[in-house]
Amino acid sequence: MKATLAAICLLSPSLALGSDDPLPSWNDGPAKTAVLNFVETTTTEGSTDFVRPSERIAVFDNDGTLWAEQPMYFQLLFALDRVKAQADDHPEWKTTEPFKSALAGDMKGLLATGKEGLAKVLAVSHAGMTADEFAGSVRRWLRTAKHPTTGKPYYRMVYQPMLELLAHLRSNGYKTFIVSGGGVDFMRVFAERVYGVPPEQVIGSSIAAKYELRDGVPTIVKLPEGLFVDDKEGKPANIYGRIGRRPVFAAGNSDGDKQMLQYTTIPRGVDDTTARFGLLVHHTDAEREWAYDRKSHIGQFDKALDDAPQRGWVVVDMAEDWNRVFAD
Amino acid sequence: MKATLAAICLLSPSLALGSDDPLPSWNDGPAKTAVLNFVETTTTEGSTDFVRPSERIAVFDNDGTLWAEQPMYFQLLFALDRVKAQADDHPEWKTTEPFKSALAGDMKGLLATGKEGLAKVLAVSHAGMTADEFAGSVRRWLRTAKHPTTGKPYYRMVYQPMLELLAHLRSNGYKTFIVSGGGVDFMRVFAERVYGVPPEQVIGSSIAAKYELRDGVPTIVKLPEGLFVDDKEGKPANIYGRIGRRPVFAAGNSDGDKQMLQYTTIPRGVDDTTARFGLLVHHTDAEREWAYDRKSHIGQFDKALDDAPQRGWVVVDMAEDWNRVFAD
Repeated sequence: MKATLAAICLLSPSLALGSDDPLPSWNDGPAKTAVLNFVETTTTEGSTDFVRPSERIAVFDNDGTLWAEQPMYFQLLFALDRVKAQADDHPEWKTTEPFKSALAGDMKGLLATGKEGLAKVLAVSHAGMTADEFAGSVRRWLRTAKHPTTGKPYYRMVYQPMLELLAHLRSNGYKTFIVSGGGVDFMRVFAERVYGVPPEQVIGSSIAAKYELRDGVPTIVKLPEGLFVDDKEGKPANIYGRIGRRPVFAAGNSDGDKQMLQYTTIPRGVDDTTARFGLLVHHTDAEREWAYDRKSHIGQFDKALDDAPQRGWVVVDMAEDWNRVFAD
Repeated sequence: MKATLAAICLLSPSLALGSDDPLPSWNDGPAKTAVLNFVETTTTEGSTDFVRPSERIAVFDNDGTLWAEQPMYFQLLFALDRVKAQADDHPEWKTTEPFKSALAGDMKGLLATGKEGLAKVLAVSHAGMTADEFAGSVRRWLRTAKHPTTGKPYYRMVYQPMLELLAHLRSNGYKTFIVSGGGVDFMRVFAERVYGVPPEQVIGSSIAAKYELRDGVPTIVKLPEGLFVDDKEGKPANIYGRIGRRPVFAAGNSDGDKQMLQYTTIPRGVDDTTARFGLLVHHTDAEREWAYDRKSHIGQFDKALDDAPQRGWVVVDMAEDWNRVFAD
């Protein structure tokens, strides 16, 4: 009998772990309990909190919520790598800002060039090319680039507990969206494979694009204009514009997500008793990841942290609530 | 035995009509055959034309493709009705254009005020209000307004054959989108109920919106700025921006859809052998609907009609190919 049981366990790892637990990387505690209860009550017919399948919209921030964002947004690291790769064709960059600082890896100097400087660096890697060329350059970078401190490929720095949460919501009829300050065209290159979120459910910052027939071939060209920043007030505005209905579940990790959580969870009036869920990932784990919040330049988490108790938002303590961080 | 068969037929109308035909309102002919073949070959595993479920994206224009558009776009009729309803509060409109012509029902005069005039009329009914207020005003209008010549509610002027096509694609794993020159917020009010297309799959012309907490309640306000026209080159640009991948099926009815059909159907290179389908509804039925094409001010169908043969686009002859037009 023992041999048979061992054989079954080998064949079925989830049974071996003693669980049909949909969130095995989450420790037992108030955050995990709240998430599981919410999904159960909103999907059980007859429950007062039942949410019709068509209204089951869940939105997730990306940087710091689904994957890491330190020592700086990965998309900015991509942009800097692209500047370096093109530097030989632009000798003038050695002496003119913001490229001088970018090439020297001088982050302080680069940030001192302000939004305009950053926009110039981003323009080099993100505009003036076709959509296919851009996607190809992101794809090549993801395949080869390594994170500066962990040495891992960036696509391995996604949070296993959040992958489990995405999958659990989807298996209960929720449609999962990414709503991120990151560039929509950047995230779409990997979101389907890494998160299971198809391109049409990825929402992010964007620049204008134009369509043309180029030598008879339909071509989309990315333009250095028409920037929409999908952050803070921009998130609910973009959710309205692109999804067209209010989510019932929102997850973020920084002040940039505060308005998205407000939009998702605050009742519209006294009659509005729909169940809603706001979740915030608190980066408390300096050992396995990073510890930062109120004073961080990247992913500042201050006002949203203050608002969490009164709004009923669930704050996930990464060190306490997760028994595993990365998905690799 | 006869009685039993009759009973079965009564219980099962599709059996009574002698069909598991998914397109009963389409007459047998080349258009119907082409559509049915395309759906079958792209969804049969092992077929050389097989399309993976995640890539099964189908896009539909709205005005003139899913519902009627004569004597003018229904959304413009809504805007004119709103101007009339608000005229008492704006005595100055009686003497100033474009409102003077709009109130007099003088279409020629209104069109003479150009794009700026039309924009002013649209702004009155579409901006400077909350998203909820706008949706409410469209909903009330749809409930009560009647088409000027048929006397039907507008939501009854949808094409039964196209509803069948949408349903047939969806039941074969296609995700159906609307991509229309019409306003996205206008269409979302009825698209789910009338077409089975959820708000997040409706793409259209748009204006900017902003988010704010108004008396503590999350509120989206529609702004009279940031107009994006989802027509001609704007359609593929918006498909790229919002869906993020290329459709395999596109349906339209006018020159405004030409670029969307190009983007969908023209191979990217010699290796690109993916099956693609372009469909154009030709309004040839003056008796049951309207007959118009090359010289119409609404829904002009001239260049796309010229291009259809060389591009392999299927032109649906409404009078010949449809045994039923409206869904009522």
